[in-house]
This record gives sequence, C-alpha cells and structure tokens, in this order.
Amino acid sequence: MARLTGFQKLTLADDALRTWFDVLQLTKRREITVPLDEALNRVLATDVIAKDDLPRFAKSAVDGYALKAEYTTGASQFNPVTFQLTESEEVGSKQARQIWTGNPLPKGANAVVMIENTKKRDSILEVWVQLATGGNVSKKGEDVKKAEKILKAGTRLKPYHLALLAAMGNSEVKVAEKPRIAILATGNELAEAGSKPDGNQIFDSNRIMLSAMCRELGAEPVDLGIAKDDVAEIAEKLKIGLQKCDAVITSGGTSVGGLDLVPDAVNKAGKPGVVVHGLALRPAMPTAVAVLDGKPVMILSGNPVAAIIGFEVFARPLICKMLGMNREEPRPTVNAVMTRKVATALGRKTFVRVRVTQKNGAFLAEPVSARGSGAISTMTRGNGFVIVPENREGVTEGEVVTVRLFGNVEAAS
Amino acid sequence: MARLTGFQKLTLADDALRTWFDVLQLTKRREITVPLDEALNRVLATDVIAKDDLPRFAKSAVDGYALKAEYTTGASQFNPVTFQLTESEEVGSKQARQIWTGNPLPKGANAVVMIENTKKRDSILEVWVQLATGGNVSKKGEDVKKAEKILKAGTRLKPYHLALLAAMGNSEVKVAEKPRIAILATGNELAEAGSKPDGNQIFDSNRIMLSAMCRELGAEPVDLGIAKDDVAEIAEKLKIGLQKCDAVITSGGTSVGGLDLVPDAVNKAGKPGVVVHGLALRPAMPTAVAVLDGKPVMILSGNPVAAIIGFEVFARPLICKMLGMNREEPRPTVNAVMTRKVATALGRKTFVRVRVTQKNGAFLAEPVSARGSGAISTMTRGNGFVIVPENREGVTEGEVVTVRLFGNVEAAS
Repeated sequence: MARLTGFQKLTLADDALRTWFDVLQLTKRREITVPLDEALNRVLATDVIAKDDLPRFAKSAVDGYALKAEYTTGASQFNPVTFQLTESEEVGSKQARQIWTGNPLPKGANAVVMIENTKKRDSILEVWVQLATGGNVSKKGEDVKKAEKILKAGTRLKPYHLALLAAMGNSEVKVAEKPRIAILATGNELAEAGSKPDGNQIFDSNRIMLSAMCRELGAEPVDLGIAKDDVAEIAEKLKIGLQKCDAVITSGGTSVGGLDLVPDAVNKAGKPGVVVHGLALRPAMPTAVAVLDGKPVMILSGNPVAAIIGFEVFARPLICKMLGMNREEPRPTVNAVMTRKVATALGRKTFVRVRVTQKNGAFLAEPVSARGSGAISTMTRGNGFVIVPENREGVTEGEVVTVRLFGNVEAAS
Repeated sequence: MARLTGFQKLTLADDALRTWFDVLQLTKRREITVPLDEALNRVLATDVIAKDDLPRFAKSAVDGYALKAEYTTGASQFNPVTFQLTESEEVGSKQARQIWTGNPLPKGANAVVMIENTKKRDSILEVWVQLATGGNVSKKGEDVKKAEKILKAGTRLKPYHLALLAAMGNSEVKVAEKPRIAILATGNELAEAGSKPDGNQIFDSNRIMLSAMCRELGAEPVDLGIAKDDVAEIAEKLKIGLQKCDAVITSGGTSVGGLDLVPDAVNKAGKPGVVVHGLALRPAMPTAVAVLDGKPVMILSGNPVAAIIGFEVFARPLICKMLGMNREEPRPTVNAVMTRKVATALGRKTFVRVRVTQKNGAFLAEPVSARGSGAISTMTRGNGFVIVPENREGVTEGEVVTVRLFGNVEAAS
C-alpha cells in the first residue's frame, strides 16, 4: 500500500511537544541584571518584593492646603470656615499650610483642601468645602504595601512594570538571559537574498523570518547561513550551532519523500537525536524535534508557512520556557464569525489562515484563499490562525471560532 | 463660584487631538534604508511592488517525478501505468524525471507524482495514481504576481513581511526614520531611581516609563533628565529637546491649582505654544498639548497613570502619524462582560483599568480597585482599558464592553 504521508505514524502535536520536553529536561535558566532602561520586553527572573511602602509617606494628591479635616465641618461657599496660614512643621487646630501635589503631609494635618475651594486673604484662608479625614491624601502604602509581592518571576516587562520598579527605587532588574538560537537553512536551491540567483534558485527567506520570530519573543538569533543538501555539511553546522547556542532551528531537508537529510544529520551529530518526526499537523507535517547534548533542536519544513506553524507549535513554547515563564505566553485572541466554510482533514490539527476584520463591533474571519498552500502571502494577507482540532473536518460558514491573532485587526472596508 | 476643575473650560479629547494636529501640520517623514535583519517592527516607508513573479518559475510542491499528467489516466495501485525514467532536459510522452520539492518543472512536464505513489523498477517507473494537469505543481506567480502591490506603506514589518521581502530577493527595505522624542520630568520632589532620596522625595518613574512607551511604538527616546520647578530651567531644557528631537514629552508641572509651570515655560520657549490645556478626560485632566517651532510638545501629568492616559490619547496617534501610518495602530481589543459596575463622571471620557480573564471561552472584565487613583499598581494588576465616553455615567455589572488590551489575557483562576 502506498504510504500517503510518507510516515509510518504521525504524532499528535500536543503529544510531540510533551514527549520532547520530557526528553529535554531543560536546566535552570541563567539570570542577568540589566538597567531598567534596557529591560523593556525582557522577562523577570525573580519575584519582586516591595522593599518599602509606596508611597513611602502620606502625601497630598492635589495642590492646596493641609489642615485638620475636623475643623471644616459645615464649610460651604456661603459659609466659609477660616484657618490661620502657617509655615511651621506642624499644623495646629484651625491652621493650614500650603502644599503641592506629591508633598508629604505635614505633622498634625489629615486632609488637604484643593486650592480652588479656598480663598486666601493675607494670612487667613477661607475654606469653602467640608473635608473627610484623609481627603485628597494619598495614604502611605496605598499603592503598594511593604513586603508585598509586586511582580512575579516570568512577567514580560512592559512600560508600567518598569515604572513600578523605578517608583520603588530600583535602577536595575534581574531578567532571564536571552536564549541564543542558531538558525540554519538547508537546500541546494537556496540563494541569499540580495544575490544574483541562477535560473533554478529561489531566495532563502526562512532565516530572516525565523530570526525575527526569535527576536519577537526575546531570544537572540545566531545565523548559521545556508547548508547544501549534504548530511556531513549539515551535521558540521549543527555542531557549530550547538557549541555557540542554547538551541538550533533548521529549515528544509525534512521530507521523507526524498531524503531525511536533516534528521539523518541530527542523528549523526549526537544523542539522543530525533525524538519525534512526522506530525498530525497541517501544514508542517514533516516537522521533527530532537535533542542533542541536552539542547533542543527544531527541524522545520523549508516551506515558509509550514516553518511558521512549526515555530508556533514548538519554538514558541520552548522559548517561553527558556525565559522562565511558567506557561506559553498567549497571543491575543478574538472570537469571530467564519464568512466561509473551510474543509480540513480529519486526524490533522490544521492552522487555517484567516483575515479578521471588525464590522459594527462584530469580528468576521475570512479564510485567506491559498493560491498556493505554501504561499507566504497567505500570512501577509491574513492576521490570524483558526486552529481546527484533529477531531473536526473543518469549520462551517457562520460558525464562531477563536482566532489566534498574529497581526492587527482593521475595520472592514 | 469655585472652579471645581481649575480650568475655565475642558476640551473633549478627540477635539483636542484634531485641533493640535491642525496647528501642527506635520511635514513629510524621513525615510531610511535598513537591512532586512534590522527591519523587524519598523514601519514601511513606501509601497512595495513585486519585481517578479513568486515563484519565478513553475516548481514541484513535492518530492517525486515530473511527467505529463494526461498519461496517468486510469492509473491506480491495482492498475499502475508505467513511465520511462529520463534525465534529459525535456520530458517526453510516457517519460518521467525525478524531482525534489522546489525544483523547477522540466520542459514538457505539467504535473508531479509523489514518490510515495510510485514504484521504481530499474529504469521503469510504476505510477499508482491519476494526476490532473498542474497536480503537485506550484505555478509561476501563484504566491505573488509580478507588478502586484505586495505591501503598503505604513505597514509595521512582522517576520512574515520580512520573509515575503526576502523571497522577492530584497536584502534591505525603506522604512520610516524613528522619530526622536525628548523626555523631561519636572518636580523638586523627584529623585533619580537608584539614588538615596531625602525624606520628602519620591523616585521619578515617568521618564523610564515614557521612554519605554516610545520604544514600543518604534520611536527613539532621548532623556532630558529632571528639571526643578523653575520656569527658566524648564524652558531651557525644552529648547535643548527641540534642537535634538522631533518632539518633546514632559511630565509634571501641569496643574493649574498651583502653578502652570510647564505650560508657562512652553509659552516662553516659542510660538504658538500651548494649543489646548485642560481636557474632559479622567485621569489626565491637566494634560496640555503645544506646538513649538512646528514641533509637537506633549505636557503630561506627573501622576503616572494620568501620564499613561495622556500618552495613549496624544503620543500614540502622533507617533503613528510620524511613522507614516495612515491611522493609529490599533491595540488588540476584546469584548468582555463587566463583573462589577463602575461609576464615571458625565462629560468626562474615562479610562477605567480592568483585568480581563477568560473563563470557559467568555471574557470577564474586573475593574481594578483603585487603592489610589494615581496608583501605578492599577496598571500592573490590570491588562486593559474600558473607555467610557463623555455621554455615559459609567458601565453596569453584566454590560458587554470593549476592552483595549495593554497586557496579556490569562485564564481565570
């Protein structure tokens, strides 16, 4: 009987990931201290515990006058209460002291009247509103309490996280070191972008793409160039990648129709070698994952779309784990209505590319017609994946699906 | 009558933005050519037109044998059709030539049979399936047609855009130059993070935060440090910022309760000066926008949350415009159900911080309780804004709201 897939057995994508991680046994990630100014999008290596209260002292939330609230009882614009202005350290009964936003509350005061609700006549202040104790005061520790856990290890640092760290007095932060990931393309047919290809060559686009995908997640790509379709050359480059880096990603040379060049090279390069080869996944069926010298190796298809899906399924969770996140960082999702049906193969998890648009508040998902299934333009024309599980034969028109977004959603034209 | 807001008139946020852009009259952005390898997240400066078809030639989509499809009629595993194997340039009738994925189709062939659907016996090939013309062939131009517009000016370049550019043979790309944005904090109360503050000081956190927010959008922040509450010093630093940069953002010194330090300094520094001061916006009411020497100046609150909202309302659309996008880049949004009601002030556009979680496929939005309204921890504990318009007095429990996400959505615990 003809082997329709070319593989004796296809492994479910989730099972493959679990098996690979089990064999891999990632060791503890390395940490590095960086200035806050360089910490955007890095991943926090340790929990952060507040060293102090924030604010460290009760302070005024407005520009105005600090006083004792109890003496404002009954005050209104038609019935002002007068206070004696003072510049002393402590505010006494019926005394008021000018204060600006952020200034510490002087001793004796328990509220601040806004400047707009007063009138100053020489050394006398008319107050036009009644205040409660604590009025217009930011209490000590109201934002953060001392010894509180303010950020968890594994947090991707955004501008407001950096603000919180700075507000607590930190000028640097411990983050996960960037995993270094070697990127190797294979194929006699590949020419460098920018070069003059011969008539039968195509330009390599996978290295630039996979490098950028690593960078997006906070890993550091290391370019290993293009290897010819030669097991010895591929094995040699793999070894260089493993020496320099924490992981290797290859593209091309994975198909069993012709030759398993890269899987063969991986198995020659060390132990245990290939862990899973052949996935119940479309596109990206010929993907393989391996372990060499305790380091992860991802053997992706040369087809750019299949390489993206292979990266999404294996490299993305791997990099998140290497960065010390306790689970894969989610992509934004939307629930959208399919505008057309799409058929998929039973028993294959299928990544359908769609273009989500928003119309009158509703999200619509239009399948991106695959002029060619390997066409990279299905990615640039789309903005999300509908992941059809193995037990479904597709999605129907009008069905509400969850879309994993990789691009911006625009309003429908 | 007491001026409750301290402003004679509050301007609607949308009106303020329009007025400011009208006065501003941004000139054409500058372009710069960068290697593809450095182009991730840069913004495309020009439309990209395909110089050639992609693929440039009809090529095999599989590993197998190129042949004329018409001679496979009726072929099956029980009724194989035999072909003569050849290595010549051209494939004749009932001839087949071995071919790998990505190889150009030889002359005379119009289909490729997968290796799994054949059996080779010396120089004879048994073919077990019937093929249609074009079967397993990627047609010339099926991904991209020559002269097609493949990417639009203003596109934020993602890994798959870079792949498409590389696949078309480009090794570099024209992108918008990064706008340089000077960041100045003002306030006698501010201490540098990492320094030893005196008892009344707080650590400045806005410069680190606003710089990171600029970087996230693809602008280049330039640090002007901290200025004392002194109009002359602020005006001096503004001038330095305007000399070095394309725009200036300040934080602090905007309140009219005490002194309009920064607006005063801006008006001293040049013409036309402050365009709008005082917004019907919560938080961020005391925000001002100005124009000096034709360059935009954003005068944000010293309160970190108000500074974030001011940035969201003014700096974000400005930077997108400076990068040549034809409209503001959308943040991801979700429709979520409010778990509690939130009251807002009529006549004020209000940014309510919420934490969105996902439970059984549904999105829930929990308002982040403001222990202090200026508390930066409302940002680190939340992941999105519900923007309540001026004509509403809040949102009700159970209401479906659109949330503008600034952080990841996790599953509900």
